[in-house]
Amino acid sequence: MTQPRRTLTDAERFDWLRLIRTENVGPITFHRLLDQYGSARAALDALPELAKRGGRTKPLRVASKAEVEREFAANQRIGARLLCACEPDYPEPLAAVDDAPPVVSVLGHAHLLRRRAVALVGARNASLNGKKFAEQIARDLGEAGFLVVSGLARGIDTAAHAGALGTGTAAVVAGGIDVVYPPENDRLYRDIVQQGVVVAESAIGTQPQARHFPRRNRLISGLSLGVLVVEAALRSGSLITARMALEQGREVMAVPGSPLDPRCQGTNNLIKEGASLVALADDVIRALENLSPPAVREPQGDLFAAPRPSEPAESELEAARAVVLENLGHTPVAIDELVRGCQLSAPVVLTVVLELELAGRVQRQPGNQVNLI
Amino acid sequence: MTQPRRTLTDAERFDWLRLIRTENVGPITFHRLLDQYGSARAALDALPELAKRGGRTKPLRVASKAEVEREFAANQRIGARLLCACEPDYPEPLAAVDDAPPVVSVLGHAHLLRRRAVALVGARNASLNGKKFAEQIARDLGEAGFLVVSGLARGIDTAAHAGALGTGTAAVVAGGIDVVYPPENDRLYRDIVQQGVVVAESAIGTQPQARHFPRRNRLISGLSLGVLVVEAALRSGSLITARMALEQGREVMAVPGSPLDPRCQGTNNLIKEGASLVALADDVIRALENLSPPAVREPQGDLFAAPRPSEPAESELEAARAVVLENLGHTPVAIDELVRGCQLSAPVVLTVVLELELAGRVQRQPGNQVNLI
Repeated sequence: MTQPRRTLTDAERFDWLRLIRTENVGPITFHRLLDQYGSARAALDALPELAKRGGRTKPLRVASKAEVEREFAANQRIGARLLCACEPDYPEPLAAVDDAPPVVSVLGHAHLLRRRAVALVGARNASLNGKKFAEQIARDLGEAGFLVVSGLARGIDTAAHAGALGTGTAAVVAGGIDVVYPPENDRLYRDIVQQGVVVAESAIGTQPQARHFPRRNRLISGLSLGVLVVEAALRSGSLITARMALEQGREVMAVPGSPLDPRCQGTNNLIKEGASLVALADDVIRALENLSPPAVREPQGDLFAAPRPSEPAESELEAARAVVLENLGHTPVAIDELVRGCQLSAPVVLTVVLELELAGRVQRQPGNQVNLI
Repeated sequence: MTQPRRTLTDAERFDWLRLIRTENVGPITFHRLLDQYGSARAALDALPELAKRGGRTKPLRVASKAEVEREFAANQRIGARLLCACEPDYPEPLAAVDDAPPVVSVLGHAHLLRRRAVALVGARNASLNGKKFAEQIARDLGEAGFLVVSGLARGIDTAAHAGALGTGTAAVVAGGIDVVYPPENDRLYRDIVQQGVVVAESAIGTQPQARHFPRRNRLISGLSLGVLVVEAALRSGSLITARMALEQGREVMAVPGSPLDPRCQGTNNLIKEGASLVALADDVIRALENLSPPAVREPQGDLFAAPRPSEPAESELEAARAVVLENLGHTPVAIDELVRGCQLSAPVVLTVVLELELAGRVQRQPGNQVNLI
């Protein structure tokens, strides 16, 4: 996100939503398009040609105006706000993330997102003790002024939200802002809407799918100064959140547990690897107190007025396409490695990758990696 | 311990034992006397005059020959060996400790003390899980070739010895080598004598007193490359062993546990403060594998032949005594601070402290500190 922070007009917000809802446009591609074309509007205009150059034969399915209008209306109906990544109300720690969601839907008390936030995550099949601990430390952290962020899942998440309900908690959901998952947390969801805040990246009405959860986890860590993992087995999804926190430069903390309990193996391993051990709320407060909040890199001057970075010439791109394709495989490769491997300039490689992605031939992976589909 | 390593004659060993069994002679003072006078014999001769100079009015109670003969005979009767700190069979990691016991009594398979050793210690009122964990990891470490050292106490110690009984375990007792404490561990004690090794610093027949336990703990860590604390509350004696390990430059390791269990607060705190988190025997093996065994600083040349460091002149000492006493108080002070505070040379201050100690007016404390009694 290198857009200057400002409130968008309704028309601009409409274009942002339309661009991110377009086929093959993920957050990284979205931000790159915005950097390249200066506005979502200009990017939308350029899309069909870009996809064609990437080798797409049938036209790219750009989100229709009607669809986007329906999404706006549906959000409005339930009182949810759509916030774009460059807007002042969009949480800054999240905007600082490379693949920040261009648009999020927010329901409830959006102002809570301005607080210093800490994520509490952990096992769905948590132990009684784990849940008790999570609820207590969430309460303590809430009372210490933190917004407690979690994912509305069973187990630790539920306990964390419950503990911080009175002081302020944010639930980041994997599906649409109006879709409660798991259904048994319907009551908690409604309580959070009343007293806290719910955040979603998926379009309203979306039923959550398996693939949504890891993407959702990057929002949980992205909203927060640090992530505290309370209980986690070796393959727990919470460890994905911890890894994302690490990639986002956030603090990773973990609660220790008996090595005989498989639900503590993940957390103990995190501590072995350098996560801060947390036994009390004070440990979290101390770990976070000297951190400066993650900040968005503000662009130099006004990008809207400044000339866009010029697009590489078609002749240059023409020659580059074969080289980039040759250097790509089904195993993900880091973008900078790809640039080095191609022995071409970064803007040329990035533009070719963008074309290929829009054409549906290349996929982004976490850690700024790409692979052929 | 800066004596050259060699097997002593029976007469020399007799003098060593007699010197360390003498009133007001602790290990530090013992080693200093040996450095100063070259042999235990010469030190014994110098003692009465030193104590008198320190201000003692009634004569110093030097251990009688008869007492020392009885101690030798009693050890021999049960098959225990007396090892002096400079002898080749005395465990080298222990000899490397500043306040290494000048003489230890060893019963059972003394050769086990040549193995790389790891101490396992923890709560006496350990949880079932804690004991299960200790027994299993002791077995694993034993099978990996380590000697498992512990203190024959209830709880974690008992479990550790039991787990490593088949491969080799060392019990360091606080009282005499023949005194089983707690009595309920009589069977385990006899098993260890048969299959492992028992080590004691106190004279044979000594009933353990509260003050013996912290001193015993320094042997547990001193014999080992590292100390693993399995379960420990905030004021557990195991934390003393961990602190001693740290002072001795040994690895400190701890097993994590639920913050809700008070028996894990001590271990969790150790991890917070930098101890290695141990969940598996492999974690211990990895933490210890690259450590070079603690080594005794060998003296330059043959100290027995070389001239002794000359004793400061009486005129110098005379003036120094008042200054040292003035700088000492009832609060322990580090020896080097004392030297700086007195603005006198180190040999002068050390000699005065030695005199005062023998006179019973000054007490040594852990961490090379002294205070007035």
